[in-house]
Amino acid sequence: MFAEVLTIGDELLTGHTVDSNSAFIASKLTEQGYWVRRITTVGDDVEEIKAVVGEILARKPEVLVISGGLGPTHDDVTMLAVAEALGRKLVLCEKCLERIKAFYEKLYSEGYIDDPSLNEGRKKMAYLPEGAEPLENTGGAAPGAFIEHKGVKIFVLPGMPREMKAMLEKEVLPRLGRRKFLQRKFLAEITDESKLAPILREALERFNVRIHSSPKGFGKYIGLIIFAEDEGELEKTVEYLESRGIRLEEA
Amino acid sequence: MFAEVLTIGDELLTGHTVDSNSAFIASKLTEQGYWVRRITTVGDDVEEIKAVVGEILARKPEVLVISGGLGPTHDDVTMLAVAEALGRKLVLCEKCLERIKAFYEKLYSEGYIDDPSLNEGRKKMAYLPEGAEPLENTGGAAPGAFIEHKGVKIFVLPGMPREMKAMLEKEVLPRLGRRKFLQRKFLAEITDESKLAPILREALERFNVRIHSSPKGFGKYIGLIIFAEDEGELEKTVEYLESRGIRLEEA
Repeated sequence: MFAEVLTIGDELLTGHTVDSNSAFIASKLTEQGYWVRRITTVGDDVEEIKAVVGEILARKPEVLVISGGLGPTHDDVTMLAVAEALGRKLVLCEKCLERIKAFYEKLYSEGYIDDPSLNEGRKKMAYLPEGAEPLENTGGAAPGAFIEHKGVKIFVLPGMPREMKAMLEKEVLPRLGRRKFLQRKFLAEITDESKLAPILREALERFNVRIHSSPKGFGKYIGLIIFAEDEGELEKTVEYLESRGIRLEEA
Repeated sequence: MFAEVLTIGDELLTGHTVDSNSAFIASKLTEQGYWVRRITTVGDDVEEIKAVVGEILARKPEVLVISGGLGPTHDDVTMLAVAEALGRKLVLCEKCLERIKAFYEKLYSEGYIDDPSLNEGRKKMAYLPEGAEPLENTGGAAPGAFIEHKGVKIFVLPGMPREMKAMLEKEVLPRLGRRKFLQRKFLAEITDESKLAPILREALERFNVRIHSSPKGFGKYIGLIIFAEDEGELEKTVEYLESRGIRLEEA
């Protein structure tokens, strides 16, 4: 029941841009009940993307969300690379082409661009891997794609945060199943987090939960996040921690 | 001549924290002349970390920078996992233990903590993979580690940004070689980036450079970053683009 996230863009690998997309995607997947097991970032390079998509598929996640590299320029190669990784052809999505045409005509009529015609780069965005379902982009030209491949739900989204977020909320999340695990955040009152270690270890042995702790400086509060598949296990863990003298406050 | 970055932390996979560390590390490596080829994030899990370190080493980067999971709690398992991935034992670094002891004694004397003693969690931080050189942490308790393993320079740094940044600047960068490739940022004046595509493709065929373009909305400026190993190739590329009617302004 796990998911992976793949973000694509040279600007992420040079550190010019902080990859906030993957955190946004991961938080939404986590809320939806998925355990995000790995986030990977590679550049705008067909061979790199192909390689990493192949590696991810071999780990058999339930869901793979890919973001970035759908635009009209020479370095936007994500759809091509994904198609190649899946052994599928890129095929023209007529509906997408109509949508792209209308998009540029609207920009032209509003004076944003001086040529509304469908040049090579703009047409490129209408090609999706064979068998993909197009995902609507309410904020830009490039459609996304949803592909079910050997049991993995693959979503390919744009990299522009505004476009990616809208597509994730409107097109991706409704296609995913219901919440499968719970998480609850607490502030634990204790002088130093190293004192927590033995108590948390005992809790992990007793209950079917995962616990993440993070220091809040050297003050007396430690942030705890408890993950469980079952409300009962989560409750029992909280009771146990409190019985061991840790004061928990829901955060 | 490439590098990889690995960030570790459950809070990154749940989206609770945006991973700005990897961008910082990537920008410093890029400035130093390294091509960062991939960034990976996994959780605080020994098996996951072992697996991903093994995969990265198999790709034979020159440099691997790992950040996160060096603290005193049960979920800080990075040093153990790295040691296991490399087939090395964890061994006590006496000098590190002294340093950790002094660190907690100072915090105690300043009234930040109520017990300066070296409990299990605090002692744990003094264990490094056999053969590692400790890296000084000027802002926290946990030392980092520098390990040369089968031609890969591996640096293990804390996840707290303040500690990580200081260690990267003071301990990692001085151990890396000089600048090996150049990058220059431009603003290209053009109505729409899809018009750039054929011209950029021609430049890529002619010169030994990499070019990244990113739209700045739908205005008339496109951001370009040109990467080259050689100043001459970079200059020739700029001249060529200008000869094709693209106005470039250094950004």
